[in-house]
Amino acid sequence: MNQLPFTKAQIEEIAKSYPTPFYIYDEKGLREAAKKLKKAFSWAPNFTNYYAVKTNPNPHLVKIMKDEGFGADCSSFSELVIAEKVGLTGENIMFSSNDTPYDEFKKAFDLGAIINLDDITHIPILEKYAGIPEIISFRYNPGPLRQHKGNAIIGKPEDAKFGMTKEQLFEGYKIMKEKGVKRFGIHTMIVSNELDSNAFVETADILFDLVVAISKDLGIHFEFVDLGGGIGIPYKEHDQAVDLDFVSQEIQKLYEKKIAGGGLAPLRIVMENGRLLAGPHGYLVTTAIHKKEIYKNYVGIDASMAHLMRPALYGAYHHIVVLGKESETPTEVYDVSGSICENLDKLAIDRKLPKITPGDILVFQNAGAYGYAMSFNFNGKLRTAELLLKSDGSIKLIRRAETIDDYFATLDFSDL
Amino acid sequence: MNQLPFTKAQIEEIAKSYPTPFYIYDEKGLREAAKKLKKAFSWAPNFTNYYAVKTNPNPHLVKIMKDEGFGADCSSFSELVIAEKVGLTGENIMFSSNDTPYDEFKKAFDLGAIINLDDITHIPILEKYAGIPEIISFRYNPGPLRQHKGNAIIGKPEDAKFGMTKEQLFEGYKIMKEKGVKRFGIHTMIVSNELDSNAFVETADILFDLVVAISKDLGIHFEFVDLGGGIGIPYKEHDQAVDLDFVSQEIQKLYEKKIAGGGLAPLRIVMENGRLLAGPHGYLVTTAIHKKEIYKNYVGIDASMAHLMRPALYGAYHHIVVLGKESETPTEVYDVSGSICENLDKLAIDRKLPKITPGDILVFQNAGAYGYAMSFNFNGKLRTAELLLKSDGSIKLIRRAETIDDYFATLDFSDL
Repeated sequence: MNQLPFTKAQIEEIAKSYPTPFYIYDEKGLREAAKKLKKAFSWAPNFTNYYAVKTNPNPHLVKIMKDEGFGADCSSFSELVIAEKVGLTGENIMFSSNDTPYDEFKKAFDLGAIINLDDITHIPILEKYAGIPEIISFRYNPGPLRQHKGNAIIGKPEDAKFGMTKEQLFEGYKIMKEKGVKRFGIHTMIVSNELDSNAFVETADILFDLVVAISKDLGIHFEFVDLGGGIGIPYKEHDQAVDLDFVSQEIQKLYEKKIAGGGLAPLRIVMENGRLLAGPHGYLVTTAIHKKEIYKNYVGIDASMAHLMRPALYGAYHHIVVLGKESETPTEVYDVSGSICENLDKLAIDRKLPKITPGDILVFQNAGAYGYAMSFNFNGKLRTAELLLKSDGSIKLIRRAETIDDYFATLDFSDL
Repeated sequence: MNQLPFTKAQIEEIAKSYPTPFYIYDEKGLREAAKKLKKAFSWAPNFTNYYAVKTNPNPHLVKIMKDEGFGADCSSFSELVIAEKVGLTGENIMFSSNDTPYDEFKKAFDLGAIINLDDITHIPILEKYAGIPEIISFRYNPGPLRQHKGNAIIGKPEDAKFGMTKEQLFEGYKIMKEKGVKRFGIHTMIVSNELDSNAFVETADILFDLVVAISKDLGIHFEFVDLGGGIGIPYKEHDQAVDLDFVSQEIQKLYEKKIAGGGLAPLRIVMENGRLLAGPHGYLVTTAIHKKEIYKNYVGIDASMAHLMRPALYGAYHHIVVLGKESETPTEVYDVSGSICENLDKLAIDRKLPKITPGDILVFQNAGAYGYAMSFNFNGKLRTAELLLKSDGSIKLIRRAETIDDYFATLDFSDL
């Protein structure tokens, strides 16, 4: 678990201008996380990470990732526009989408993005609505062939809607070769929020074997393997982070044996991490506004599942720090709830915490990924501001809070 | 399950002006549902329903409910503003909130709404930030005292964050009496989306007993009992709707015995139904854009969990009609997925359907409640338009679709 990059006094000062709840991101932490990933894979020719925009689509975060030499992994039209506005172009954009609306292929094609096709049926659609690009990638789904055990969030590969079978993969590259494509990549992503380092080595192993087999069978040359993202982060106190150096070294061994040894080097290794980078360096800052004692003890805060959906949707754990009470013994057990009329609106259940008084500031850690991105307006709740704690210590508003006018923007009350 | 209130030809015509996906609501069905509820409780003095705005906060739906003589049950500031804009005032508004931000008490107080307090600690907050109103209600949580079995959505009462214990309830009314309040109501809501008619009779029984006991103990007079909402709707083909007439008759028997018999009449019966009214009369209209065959067979549509979250969040079932194929045998088994990069983004799993071709229109039934209300912008998805199929057969746009400018409204790209 990270040390908080701010003090109670700082947050109290910030809250004078930007009332809680708000998200705050730590630029220094974001940059260090990017550098650490890059360094782990420094052996790999032209390694890069396409930051998964869906994780946290704030353009200022995408910009930080760009500054660190990373591209953007986009899954939709809006995300392609974000990449474009941030100044990412061409093959610095990976378009990994599924069930893709046809106009999104066109947008990705026009931007010169690398298009990573999720299904064999997308080939004629891509050709018809956009064109055949210079470089193409396909997403593989190993289904029951995969050895590693299933993962709660992404499900068993054979139940996952993503990617193509092995047979379709061979067929897909063959078709694209016949259509004149000369540059190829390959992708799979079979885990999400996974802490087992071996899972990522296995992913590389699967893809390297496919590169060897497909290269040989079809006589095509692969430029890159895209290992996807899915690297988990330690949400709980005793969780162990993925050992990036171990993962990298094991992948390097496989690379040397299978790729370099097979005469297929150089092969670029790329990834699509989002959570690993944004997750630990984002915080949801909230204020306790009520205490309630009925059959359980509750702390009511000014944020809700409308602002952080992961506990309701995934049963996810977000560690809570009560500012100023960091060193107090957690003597109490609370459900920490928001004000949505829905009993799933509990951001923590049976959580051991120090004794809380209304007015206390509760900081939810590891909220940088799938936090704001999944926020919504249920019960008429307004989405929060997002702040950037810059490397120089200053605060920048990188997204203003919604107003009720934003909430009503698509309505016309005049004709009621 | 309702007969669709529109034909394939009508939807195709509508889609020329309003491309799928969109929500469409059936005014005739909405009004009939309201009338049916009112009629079932015609014996009850001044029966009304406070339409639960959270269910579907489109002001045009709230307006239809107002036209039918119903009030609004509001859970937040935004919902209070919607009620106000629709022209509901004073005691036509019920403010049933939990973990309430202080300024929302003020807004409810200023509107003259009936304030339904969720917790005993809210009394001093209400007094400090708004004032002591003329009429007050409290929400009861029977906890383990409740006999009826737990309900999946709202959870066991003792795990629910809502309401007060019996002891707190007595204390609350006592305090309010001492503060000069002379008009009282009482509320509980211990089930959600419940199809067992007996549950609602039980709710009335619990509240009537409390009215008797508290009246006697404190010498106060209750004006109303608020039975809450929670009446489920038949989402699945063989689900049986709650028998409103049975519920009403059984409640009437209890009323006569306990309330009238105890000299406590007249006591107004009110409810807070939302789903019962809006649910069956809203439809999410989507188009199949892809078919995919890997380890399972998929139909990809142009809507996603961003537009209808209930299947992902609750594992909810929404019946699908493929327009023009209503009478075809469901020979296929599909997962119906959207384009979110999240395997939970399946609006139906292992669903038996007729053979689908891209271009087919898939209508999700019973989507009027917690459909648009829970939609979000994950993966940069834009929220849909909402249309009203008016009683005269015409179509009215009651919420425009979001544009990418709406999605970017809280961002400033100029300082990247």
